Amino acid sequence: MFVLGIDPGLSRCGYGAVRETRGVTEVISAGLITTPKEFGVAERLSILLRDVREILAELKPDIVAIERILFRNNAKTAMSVGQASGVVLLAAFEAGCEIVEYSASEVKLAVAGYGSADKLQVQRMIQVLGKLDQIPKPPDVADALGLAFCHLANHSYASLVRTAERSVTR
Amino acid sequence: MFVLGIDPGLSRCGYGAVRETRGVTEVISAGLITTPKEFGVAERLSILLRDVREILAELKPDIVAIERILFRNNAKTAMSVGQASGVVLLAAFEAGCEIVEYSASEVKLAVAGYGSADKLQVQRMIQVLGKLDQIPKPPDVADALGLAFCHLANHSYASLVRTAERSVTR
Repeated sequence: MFVLGIDPGLSRCGYGAVRETRGVTEVISAGLITTPKEFGVAERLSILLRDVREILAELKPDIVAIERILFRNNAKTAMSVGQASGVVLLAAFEAGCEIVEYSASEVKLAVAGYGSADKLQVQRMIQVLGKLDQIPKPPDVADALGLAFCHLANHSYASLVRTAERSVTR
Repeated sequence: MFVLGIDPGLSRCGYGAVRETRGVTEVISAGLITTPKEFGVAERLSILLRDVREILAELKPDIVAIERILFRNNAKTAMSVGQASGVVLLAAFEAGCEIVEYSASEVKLAVAGYGSADKLQVQRMIQVLGKLDQIPKPPDVADALGLAFCHLANHSYASLVRTAERSVTR
């Protein structure tokens, strides 16, 4: 299974691709898409779309795991994050990927064991899970990798449950 | 000047096109884009993009006036409105249109004279301004026409100011 995690944002959009083969995970690619602050929102969204399309075309993931945004933060950021998330969803749909959504606390719970882990704890856990030489930076990249690991963890758990159910019903 | 107003939304996205020729305004087209609630968000965004592109290709407006969303409402609606607004901005940018943004209260101020007018007052004023046989419905369509009239009003005012400045500096 090949999952691309995307943490949407207009200024900084993190992405991280993780492949799982027979229970072994490997980070294939991770990085940050940025758009110039001096451009208008519409032009920045079109740059984001172009870059996300390029990444999807290059990596060809089966699944895109995107952060489900909750509007707790300030209204101005929430607006541009919502717009960026729309563009990312669009690109993932166009590319024919399955789309799954996880909240930030679901990701923290999956990778760091509890939903209130701080940014640095999450980054360190991602470093360990991804067997990375360095802590993934900035946090947007770690969050994107976290989304991919979160989906793989949930999927493994779901598979375990299904296997257990099958053995019970037999 | 030919302005297409768009009130973005995932369930209901209103649009209304108004042309001004030598101070005379005319409603060219108005309607509602809807996307099926039973589809996933990404697919609904792709339907919205397709429909907005079609409208832009058919009408060829110079300017797209879009509602600037403020996140006062409930978080779930705000999220999908943000995503829809991202898609609309993208389509307008691709089509090479100038993009302007107005808040709902700026529109109310421009078309109904004060920023706290209720939905029905706005719909009635739009009916009068657009010389329409009926009240534009649903409110999303009236709001979209309101955005177009708001830009035309602001532009006329700006032209008057520029003309006045020129006569002063002469």
